[in-house]
Amino acid sequence: MGKNDSSQRHEAITRYIQADPFAAQLGATVEIPAPGQSRVFLTVSREMANFHGLTHGGVIFALSDIAFAAASNSFGQTALALNVAINFLRASRPGDRLVAEAREVHAGGRTAVYDIEVKNAETGEVIARSQDLVYRKKEWFIPGDEGL
Amino acid sequence: MGKNDSSQRHEAITRYIQADPFAAQLGATVEIPAPGQSRVFLTVSREMANFHGLTHGGVIFALSDIAFAAASNSFGQTALALNVAINFLRASRPGDRLVAEAREVHAGGRTAVYDIEVKNAETGEVIARSQDLVYRKKEWFIPGDEGL
Amino acid sequence: MGKNDSSQRHEAITRYIQADPFAAQLGATVEIPAPGQSRVFLTVSREMANFHGLTHGGVIFALSDIAFAAASNSFGQTALALNVAINFLRASRPGDRLVAEAREVHAGGRTAVYDIEVKNAETGEVIARSQDLVYRKKEWFIPGDEGL
Amino acid sequence: MGKNDSSQRHEAITRYIQADPFAAQLGATVEIPAPGQSRVFLTVSREMANFHGLTHGGVIFALSDIAFAAASNSFGQTALALNVAINFLRASRPGDRLVAEAREVHAGGRTAVYDIEVKNAETGEVIARSQDLVYRKKEWFIPGDEGL
Repeated sequence: MGKNDSSQRHEAITRYIQADPFAAQLGATVEIPAPGQSRVFLTVSREMANFHGLTHGGVIFALSDIAFAAASNSFGQTALALNVAINFLRASRPGDRLVAEAREVHAGGRTAVYDIEVKNAETGEVIARSQDLVYRKKEWFIPGDEGL
Repeated sequence: MGKNDSSQRHEAITRYIQADPFAAQLGATVEIPAPGQSRVFLTVSREMANFHGLTHGGVIFALSDIAFAAASNSFGQTALALNVAINFLRASRPGDRLVAEAREVHAGGRTAVYDIEVKNAETGEVIARSQDLVYRKKEWFIPGDEGL
Repeated sequence: MGKNDSSQRHEAITRYIQADPFAAQLGATVEIPAPGQSRVFLTVSREMANFHGLTHGGVIFALSDIAFAAASNSFGQTALALNVAINFLRASRPGDRLVAEAREVHAGGRTAVYDIEVKNAETGEVIARSQDLVYRKKEWFIPGDEGL
Repeated sequence: MGKNDSSQRHEAITRYIQADPFAAQLGATVEIPAPGQSRVFLTVSREMANFHGLTHGGVIFALSDIAFAAASNSFGQTALALNVAINFLRASRPGDRLVAEAREVHAGGRTAVYDIEVKNAETGEVIARSQDLVYRKKEWFIPGDEGL
């Protein structure tokens, strides 16, 4: 593949991933700086609180999961989450601007592992950290090297 | 505490937990059959899909987390999630009716552990399983034995 | 396969699994009541303590892992651990007799999930609980249905 | 505390941690470069194999756990493991020289989180990665700032 093909392919993958209904529903914006990486921004709304008035754990995880799915599918090969282990480190609140950053730390055989951090986008404080495992299917949703 | 007090207390705790903004936003309904347990229902909408058209992992986790928060706070004592480890077993799709069931399996010192299963509410097939850990704060949001 | 073949096969698998050097080294005894299950006994020696004088976390995990490996390989198909998430619930001490019980809770595609509990064999108190994920290779170390 | 006191204290803590019976039993050597960090070396013996002839998962975990315990107790305050989530990335074999490196990535309230990597000490290849959570007790086994 030439340079243009490669950059057109990255754009096609990015468009596919950005068309994520649940990310859109939450108001999250997805960036894919390079294959194997992602960055997802979200401003916590009042509807995203739990009954204690803090950001809901489900929102923190959803944000982390959107970043995980974006990074792990960013090669154009269909990747399915097998396992996520997440530690919640600090509380956050409605009004906070959060960012989740994901990066691949290992790929081998049919599986791959990602590190994801959810941070306060303004202060940089880490809200949650997770280690996530995917199964890589044989299907490519955007044909790649193996699809040519 | 007399029987009536105890049942009024359980109702007050249930009302507090059911006033969860994010659960309401997703359309999830929360039941607390007994202290230490919960059951949360959700019908997967089209907006809850991922870019592959399946139920978003973030939705499965959010459902699991709503059940976790309900069960772990159901004694009236404030409980904060420390760690969640979740395995995704089967895919589900928009239109599916899901249920998450949580139950306490250990409580000791300042921590407690919960098992949560997310199932297809019609077929009973297990979609995801998680083991979740909370830190129990000294605060009681509804005064209990220790609050009297 | 006839009944005898099936029981001879189960014995061959059990012998293979019981010839585990590290289990022997620790003095653990492995039982496989049925495919997908295992039970492993260990008496905690003074050499298995940590620097606080309690049973070392590494020993608890090793015991849990021996049970996990026995149960997940008990079909004769080679299974490799991908991920383990363990919660430590209670301390134990040199002199305690422990038992780890593992059972398969899901198998699908190339992966399977196991629940493992480490308990005090005398009091039944739960010391640790884990949820473990394996990748099932195409190789069978004892030829099975797919090996015939 | 003066500089000498601080360095004497670090030595006292290191001696306490290095007197770990299970680490000694396995032949692991423990280093504490600085508070919150550790490095543990182990050469895999033939007795540390599983029934497939590879390094036993329980040995990999035990090595990781020795590093975790060393790093999390390296301030002189008693820390107890609550939860470990580990991903196994590559196989290793008897004869391999392994190193586990742990470092604190978060401390807040009564808990702290550590990252641990188990690597082949010669090739640098990562064998396993884990994210570990401790509960920090009020007791200090070597009196510190709070113990004076």
